[in-house]
Parts: sequence; C-alpha cells; structure tokens
Amino acid sequence: MNISPLNTKYSDAIIAKIDQKTKPPGALGQLETVAAQLALIASNRKSKFANTIEITNPTALVFAGDHGISVEGVSIAPSDVTRQMVLNFIYGGAAINCFCRANNIALKVIDAGIIQPIENDIKIQHQHFIEQRLGAGTNNFAEQAAMTKTQVKQGLAYGKTIALTQIEQGCNLLILGEMGISNTSAAAAILAALTKANVDDCVGSGTGIDPKQLIHKKQLIEQALTRISSTDAIHILEQVGGFEIVQMVGAILASAESGIAVLIDGFIVSAAALLANQINENIADYLIFSHQSDESGHQLLLNQFNASPLLNLNLRLGEGTGAALALPLLVAAAHFYNDMASFEQAGVTI
Amino acid sequence: MNISPLNTKYSDAIIAKIDQKTKPPGALGQLETVAAQLALIASNRKSKFANTIEITNPTALVFAGDHGISVEGVSIAPSDVTRQMVLNFIYGGAAINCFCRANNIALKVIDAGIIQPIENDIKIQHQHFIEQRLGAGTNNFAEQAAMTKTQVKQGLAYGKTIALTQIEQGCNLLILGEMGISNTSAAAAILAALTKANVDDCVGSGTGIDPKQLIHKKQLIEQALTRISSTDAIHILEQVGGFEIVQMVGAILASAESGIAVLIDGFIVSAAALLANQINENIADYLIFSHQSDESGHQLLLNQFNASPLLNLNLRLGEGTGAALALPLLVAAAHFYNDMASFEQAGVTI
Repeated sequence: MNISPLNTKYSDAIIAKIDQKTKPPGALGQLETVAAQLALIASNRKSKFANTIEITNPTALVFAGDHGISVEGVSIAPSDVTRQMVLNFIYGGAAINCFCRANNIALKVIDAGIIQPIENDIKIQHQHFIEQRLGAGTNNFAEQAAMTKTQVKQGLAYGKTIALTQIEQGCNLLILGEMGISNTSAAAAILAALTKANVDDCVGSGTGIDPKQLIHKKQLIEQALTRISSTDAIHILEQVGGFEIVQMVGAILASAESGIAVLIDGFIVSAAALLANQINENIADYLIFSHQSDESGHQLLLNQFNASPLLNLNLRLGEGTGAALALPLLVAAAHFYNDMASFEQAGVTI
Repeated sequence: MNISPLNTKYSDAIIAKIDQKTKPPGALGQLETVAAQLALIASNRKSKFANTIEITNPTALVFAGDHGISVEGVSIAPSDVTRQMVLNFIYGGAAINCFCRANNIALKVIDAGIIQPIENDIKIQHQHFIEQRLGAGTNNFAEQAAMTKTQVKQGLAYGKTIALTQIEQGCNLLILGEMGISNTSAAAAILAALTKANVDDCVGSGTGIDPKQLIHKKQLIEQALTRISSTDAIHILEQVGGFEIVQMVGAILASAESGIAVLIDGFIVSAAALLANQINENIADYLIFSHQSDESGHQLLLNQFNASPLLNLNLRLGEGTGAALALPLLVAAAHFYNDMASFEQAGVTI
C-alpha cells in the first residue's frame, strides 16, 4: 500500500498565509489547525502550494453490521435494531439523515453484514443503499474468532472499493459512520488489543447498559483478548472485529492512499482508524477527529493520535452524527483560508 | 420592560417528542438541550406547543465602538484598528464575513461610536452598514466615567431599535458580535463589578498583551472599580461600559421582549448579556451561549448563567465569530427536532 506521509514543504507558506489574515496570530484557535491540515492535504494532492481549500461532494458512508456477541446482552438493544435502523437510514428518518440534509452531505448506507438482508424491492428503489455483505453478522467473539481471515481481506477490499467510487465521483472529503448493535464491545476489544490498556479503561456503557451488564461486557472482552497474540491489525479484526469496522478500515486506507481527508466520527470509527494506523502509520496525517464522544474509552483512543476533536457535545449515538455535525467547521475553515483579507489587502495596521 | 420568563407548560410535550426520536434517550447530548430550548422559545412565542423549530433570517449584528482606556496601552493594537476592522467588515474581508457567508447569516455592521466616522460615500454604497453613534469613543474609564447616563439610555434605545428592525423583517434568531480595541478591559470591569469577583479572575490578556501590560490593565480596572458603588447595570455601564456594549445590552433586552433567541458570542457579548440579565433576569431563558473563548474570565462569566457553551475551539477573536460558527448546530438541532422519525414511525423496537 502506497500511502505517503504529507510532505510538509508547503507548511511554511500555509502558516504564513493564515498568519497574514486580519486577526491576531492564532486567534481562530483550532479552526486554524484544521485549515492548515486541509491546505496541506490539498497541497500534497496537487503537488503544489494550495492557495485555496475546496471541499467537494462531502460524502458520508454509514456501514452497518451485526455482532454475534449481541446474544450475551452487552447492549440495551437486540440485533434486530441494527436492521431496523438501516431501514430508517434508507427512508431518511434517522439523525444522520437529518444532519446530512442540514449540512449538504451526500449519504450512502452500506450493508456490510447485518443478520437479515434488506428486501430486493427496497434495494431497487433506493440507490443510496449499497450491499456488500461479509456474512449474516459476525460470530460471538466471546467464544470464537469473529470472522475468518478471508472475510477480513474481503472487507478491506469492499471498503476500499466504495471509498474509491466516491472519490472518482468527485468527493474529496469522506465522512465515516456506523451502525451495529454491540459494536462498542468490538471497538473496546480492539482498543485494548492495540494499546494493551486495561480493559476497564477501554469499555464503557455504550448507549446505556446497567452496571451488571457492564461487568459482564468487560469479562467477555477479557476472555476474547486471551486469544489475541499480537498487535497485528488483521489478526485483531479476525478475532474481535466487526463487518462494518473492517470495511471502514479499508475505506480509511483507500482515502489516505488517494490523498483525501477523512472525517472521523466517535468511538467505533476511531477504533477503525486506530487499526488503519496500525497497518500504515502515515494515515494519521489524513484524519480529522470530529468529536469527543461520551463513551468512556474514546478519550484514551483519541490520545493514541494526540487528537483534539472539534466538538464535545456529549453525543453517544454513532451513525456518523458527530462527524456530520462537524463538517460546517471544516467549511468555515476553508472559507477563512480562501477569502479572508490579509492585513495588506484590508489596510489593517495591527 | 415586559420580558416574560418562558412558560414551561410546553416542556413535557417537547421532551416527549425528543425522547420518541429513533435514538437512545439523551444520545444527542447538548443538541437535545438546545433543541428543547429553541422549541420552548418557539412555543412561547406562538402560545402553543411548537411541533417544529423554524430558524428564519438569522442575522448577525456586529457593534463597533472605541474605548478611551486604549491610550493606556491595555491592548496589542491602537484604537485605529477598530475603524480599520469596521472597514474590513464593510468590504467583506474579515473572519465574521467569511463565517456569515459560509453559514448563510445576514450581517449588519454598526458604528456604535468609533473615534472617526466612516466616510459618507462608503456609507451610501454599503447598506449593511448602520450608523448609530453615541460619541467618538468613550472616555478613559481609568480616570473618569466612560460615558454619561444619557449616553447609556440612548445606547439601550439604539440597540433596541436595530434589534426590533431585524425582527420585524423576519429574523427570529439574533447573533451578536463586537469590535472595539480594549473592550476586554471594559468587559472584565463589568464582570468584576457585577460579581464582586477578584479582578485577577476577571482580567485576561485579550488578543495577546504581555505580562507587564496585563498587570497594568488589572491596576486600571481596580482603580475604576473604586467608583462603582452598586451592581446597578446603568451605573456600571456609565462608569466602565462601551458604546458597543450598551447597544448590545439594548439588543438583547429587545430580543427577549420579542420572544426570540439570542446567540451569544464570547467574553464581551457575554458581559453585555450579564448586564441585560441584571436589568431583567428573565432574559437568561432566551440566551444560547455559542462558545467558550480562550479569554480567561469567560468561564467565570459563563458560570453566572450555568451555561455550557456549544463550542470550545480556543477562539479569541470576537466579531461574533464563535456565534456564527455555532449556528449550524442550531440548524441541525432544528432538523432533528422537526424531521427525525419516531420509534413508531420507523418501526424501531428498541
């Protein structure tokens, strides 16, 4: 895989451009950081200093998959809800649909492997629904490997394909989201496996389980971790991954390889990003972390990237909602980078 | 002044509507809080339960004024810069212009009393510039009252008039911003006068003064505070206020009286809000705090309202930039409140 680290030879010109804007140095805080990152990504993509940041066809890919560990009662909801929510995404009624409409984001819904497929007549009518199933939910990873190595490889390829399709169609900013009952269990196991952190620090109560369920969730994850013998991302995905997670890893790698930015949502998408980073550490340059989720463990995950996410709204929904809500900040960063007057242009003598 | 506290008789129906949306209870965090507040304001305005939140003609009013205390060197920039930035606002080159364009916000620039007025030919060409001058900058409040009681009253009236004009033209969400070299000194003095907090806790380094200037700034504020004999808002405005600040107080009071929400920017606008709250404590119901600024003292100010602002991006620019950046979150809140499917509608059985 050919993912270049961002060449920083354009950084001085980018910082100089931002510092000449009519404001005290640094006064736009994190918006300056994100503008500089987007400008550096744009400069690298065109191999010359980018005097403007263009965000074209921002597209949210929401990957859905079911998790065998659901039978253990590690979530407030049964696996049925994954499919019900996929239908909600298809029909436009979920939070992510509302936020994509509010912020002019295209939305694609991907069945990465929910238990029961969506009916043919619904599929035909809804072009923003895409089926690339790896199976009918993963195995219960408390007892056995979540999936086979073949499924992991197929999942990475599926994720790559769908990302490249969006990029070919003009998208230069990918937004990732997910749906999968019990997938905070998978994400917590991934975090613990990659960082060797204490399971207690990785596992949270997801969308709201009680303390007893939380203890059980931790025990099951501890159990699964005994099968994990290395920090190899493919091995970890095989043992405790999810079909939606492996496809997101593939999509992240393909985006970075294409030189475009990826806007990361909450805990689950961040876990996919950490796996992608384990496969190729250069991908971190392309990631923008949208929000600090309420899920305990997310802070620890963000720390692995030294990330300061843009939003902290106590969200704990997933679906890509945090990322979709953060997009206007990237658009605003582009506007000020592109159009704000310099001291010289404005005749300001600060 | 007739400002009603929001009647909470609609709150149960609003919360029930939000809780029936297809998400775990509370999973949209602060976005749910702001949706509930906007829905309650809308319900009160129409005197019946509002099933939708409409944000119409959101308008940013950016008030500019000069401060006599500038001669003491309490800012990194001289007073000249206030006027230069007003011209920058008029010509569309400042950060607030970029963010208003990015987020479809109408922008009005108000000369509330800068030292040298804008030339007639410029005024004629730029309809979004409005002149309602209280004078050519305030007096140096380290030495004497910043303005007269007559100017305070005229300023409140000016602020009211311009707010009501926007509201009559269909704006139902007012965004406030300001420009005025040295106005963090005025805001810090207001905060100290209203809360009796230690001056050290109220004063920060603004857009970036050095430690020596900071000590001097604190001394001058201490000096001014000796003239303040009560927490009466009119008295405090007279002693240490600014022409832009008093007009913002008037605009906030008029908005609340009209039953519309006001989106508050950073330290200076929050100080105006605290003064408005001192005049009528019911106004707090109508305020939405957009961001936590990097200016020390802002946290203390926000604490007076028990406010948890939406953004924390280390901004320290003013102009209304934090408020303009937060608007898309309000729009997203309206979208989910209005359009997100209920469990029943979506057939989700969580």
